[in-house]
Amino acid sequence: MNQKLFFACLIALFGLSAIAHYGHWGTIPEFCLSAAAILFVAGFLGKATESVAHYAGQRLGGFLNATFGNAAELIIAIFLVKSGHYEMVKASITGSIIGNLLLVLGLSVFLGGLKYKEQKFNVQLAGHNSSLMILAVIALFIPAIFGASEHFSADQSETLSLAIAAILIVAYILWLIFSMITHKSILEDAVETTPDHGEEAAWSKGVSILFLVLATVMTAFVSEWLVHTLDSFTEKFNLSAIFVGAFLIAIVGNAAEHSAAILLAMKNKIGAAVEIAVGSSLQIALFVSPVLVFVSLLFGEPMNLVFTTIELAAIGVSVFIATSISRDGRTNWYEGSLLLFVYIILGFAFYLV
Amino acid sequence: MNQKLFFACLIALFGLSAIAHYGHWGTIPEFCLSAAAILFVAGFLGKATESVAHYAGQRLGGFLNATFGNAAELIIAIFLVKSGHYEMVKASITGSIIGNLLLVLGLSVFLGGLKYKEQKFNVQLAGHNSSLMILAVIALFIPAIFGASEHFSADQSETLSLAIAAILIVAYILWLIFSMITHKSILEDAVETTPDHGEEAAWSKGVSILFLVLATVMTAFVSEWLVHTLDSFTEKFNLSAIFVGAFLIAIVGNAAEHSAAILLAMKNKIGAAVEIAVGSSLQIALFVSPVLVFVSLLFGEPMNLVFTTIELAAIGVSVFIATSISRDGRTNWYEGSLLLFVYIILGFAFYLV
Amino acid sequence: MNQKLFFACLIALFGLSAIAHYGHWGTIPEFCLSAAAILFVAGFLGKATESVAHYAGQRLGGFLNATFGNAAELIIAIFLVKSGHYEMVKASITGSIIGNLLLVLGLSVFLGGLKYKEQKFNVQLAGHNSSLMILAVIALFIPAIFGASEHFSADQSETLSLAIAAILIVAYILWLIFSMITHKSILEDAVETTPDHGEEAAWSKGVSILFLVLATVMTAFVSEWLVHTLDSFTEKFNLSAIFVGAFLIAIVGNAAEHSAAILLAMKNKIGAAVEIAVGSSLQIALFVSPVLVFVSLLFGEPMNLVFTTIELAAIGVSVFIATSISRDGRTNWYEGSLLLFVYIILGFAFYLV
Repeated sequence: MNQKLFFACLIALFGLSAIAHYGHWGTIPEFCLSAAAILFVAGFLGKATESVAHYAGQRLGGFLNATFGNAAELIIAIFLVKSGHYEMVKASITGSIIGNLLLVLGLSVFLGGLKYKEQKFNVQLAGHNSSLMILAVIALFIPAIFGASEHFSADQSETLSLAIAAILIVAYILWLIFSMITHKSILEDAVETTPDHGEEAAWSKGVSILFLVLATVMTAFVSEWLVHTLDSFTEKFNLSAIFVGAFLIAIVGNAAEHSAAILLAMKNKIGAAVEIAVGSSLQIALFVSPVLVFVSLLFGEPMNLVFTTIELAAIGVSVFIATSISRDGRTNWYEGSLLLFVYIILGFAFYLV
Repeated sequence: MNQKLFFACLIALFGLSAIAHYGHWGTIPEFCLSAAAILFVAGFLGKATESVAHYAGQRLGGFLNATFGNAAELIIAIFLVKSGHYEMVKASITGSIIGNLLLVLGLSVFLGGLKYKEQKFNVQLAGHNSSLMILAVIALFIPAIFGASEHFSADQSETLSLAIAAILIVAYILWLIFSMITHKSILEDAVETTPDHGEEAAWSKGVSILFLVLATVMTAFVSEWLVHTLDSFTEKFNLSAIFVGAFLIAIVGNAAEHSAAILLAMKNKIGAAVEIAVGSSLQIALFVSPVLVFVSLLFGEPMNLVFTTIELAAIGVSVFIATSISRDGRTNWYEGSLLLFVYIILGFAFYLV
Repeated sequence: MNQKLFFACLIALFGLSAIAHYGHWGTIPEFCLSAAAILFVAGFLGKATESVAHYAGQRLGGFLNATFGNAAELIIAIFLVKSGHYEMVKASITGSIIGNLLLVLGLSVFLGGLKYKEQKFNVQLAGHNSSLMILAVIALFIPAIFGASEHFSADQSETLSLAIAAILIVAYILWLIFSMITHKSILEDAVETTPDHGEEAAWSKGVSILFLVLATVMTAFVSEWLVHTLDSFTEKFNLSAIFVGAFLIAIVGNAAEHSAAILLAMKNKIGAAVEIAVGSSLQIALFVSPVLVFVSLLFGEPMNLVFTTIELAAIGVSVFIATSISRDGRTNWYEGSLLLFVYIILGFAFYLV
């Protein structure tokens, strides 16, 4: 999208959703405008992060890109935590993971596969990613499995969740050290084509930092407006918190990854598309979700990591099929359609709950 | 088997089981004769399908072979649905899947492995098959997992089952398009040796079509006679519906696959044997089971896809170990014995239920 | 460790724990001394087994090494069974499996990975091992899944457990035949570097046999003293039987494997380290646990193989992540740290129960 048009949309939608919010236009216009505005402020936040990362030098820049890649989702989730929507937070974590592994990856593989008969990518990185993904799945399953045992009190679930959150953050930091310091060269060989972002910075250093701050503030405002409408929105359409969190919020929050990955796949850079989809799921599971556990402590009542059975089932099956399909380093349109079928089945099942 | 002998047995057993049925010979002779007759009418149906497929041309023929390969099982299951034996239908779906993945594949790998130290096959097709198998497993698990949630009513389970059945049929049709049109050449290279059936048709075009119709009608009759004896048979031997469905009916219905796969394995064509066993499981899961859901609508009360925990466990572990063993494209007698051990464990557990 | 020093420690600790036991020194000194003595008597038993195996010739020697490799754990578990600590027996089986797959393998991969950037091993053997591991997991899951069904009585669980135990022992014997007779050469090529034990026997034939008998008797005595303190020890520190079994007893019983595997990994023989860790888990699951079921019959009340949900979850996730990490035949420090993280999470969760 042309940069001027982008900024015009950004400012217009931000302004409109502000007016809608403070003018009490009602649930539906407020929800729609803030959801549309999120798409653009999240895009702006992404661009600003990349630009700052460009000036920060390779190592720190890589770290910034990796850690703030899901900043918009994190900010939305923080406002959900602040307003006590714990059920919806966990649903949106679930939705981000399955949305990346099934919808983003599925559309990329499917559309890329319609254009190219077979697309290939390096499997070594996929192997690492799937081991990390399994750690994430284990970390999310353990509190639910132990929590379901009759010997386990709510307090113990709390303590276990905090411990697991701490371990996940350590695992995430070690992963950054591993992939950016000790084994940088091995992994770089494995990535056939990295997304070509930041080759030439869009803005000067000062403007970049200013924009990063501005984008963060804007994302925070729009997130609060969006979260504010959720209760009456879900009530009006008789939707469950779990469906709204797992599908509506997750799709809005992940829109940037969607477009980037699909564009890369259609340029035959399927490796980079896989990297975005899987990397984003990993970040949500290993970084965003434990951070939210600690953030909840600041707002009083702690949030645990006990997901519902259907959320865990959704995460489990998504990881399982995504891992199975990406294991051989080749993709085709049919594999993409399999991922999309699983997404549709899960979407329908969550809608019925 | 000599063709004349085959037809002699076919006609004799069909006639005897007809006389037993209409003459009310009693549960045990009726059950045994109709079960024996099923073996031959199913074999006859298979031969007739192949012969028609031969004349239908490569593409349509491939479709016929793929879709009517489990016609006998489908017909038996339709009569089970018609007589309201829903529990036994699902058990027989379970039994067909695990029977193919553990017993057929296990015997093929074991007996082939006793003759040849190591047998190899192309892994690329195995990869595709295992992704499809995972879709099937997910499709069967989701209704049970969501159905167990307290927010889910029986009506919602119904709706979800219908939606999943529709998606599975779409997935199956897309798989036929993928494997027979868009990626035919890639997959054909992968299949080292296809079963040599239909190279020369046994019968003329007209006779083939006549035989196909005749075989279908005969299968329908024998299936009805068999189903008719089931209630008093299970009562007499104090067997559970689940054991009869999952082991007795499934073994009788799959006998043709058993003999074909084992003969191929002993000719060192393990790839083709794997293809029959896994392909047949996939057809049951992706085509037969959703078709039965729609068929049940015709007979009044709809059948859902909510399998019991032990059925799902049996399917899950079978897929898991079969996938693990076929992943490396090499087999030996010990791997075959592992599959058979799991089959024996499951058989014993189902018997005890 | 110097041999003289080893024997000095062995005799001193054995003597001290004997005095502590018969002199009723109290729970804590008795527990600590017998736990320390176990480390040395188990080491002594291992050395004596190797030495006898050396004289027994290649085939019988391999069998002895394979089957008595976990003799110390077996002896401890027999005393647990004898004293009716069934819950602790199953916890210690769980703990041995996850301890080998996560702690032993994790430390080996992590420490080896700190020294060498990437360590490689032959994947073919890893493939066999993971299929066997899956059989073991299935065998342990089936009784729990069927046992949870309302149609299943305790007696049926018993019968199923006995049948599964018999099948596991047959599977284990067939595995010995496969790996030592029919496919010896293929697997030997796969093992890049076997542990260099037994190249020159430490003792003469007669002394070796005498030492094997002596070591077995000593292990039996110390095991009984250790088991004797467990009830008051767990009560004093308010620990659950499941935590003591799965972590304390399992770590003490597996100490020999720990040190051997880690030393090999640090000599860049990661394949041999993987072999020890995975092989030891397999032996526990396929040999020790079924033997204990039969041993329990001798002492009256039979022990079933129904593990708790959290034990099965722990075994399941350990097998899953260990299989995922060892599938590609390459390891690095980060993969080791992932295994250790899962071990810490499980350890903490079991501690909280």
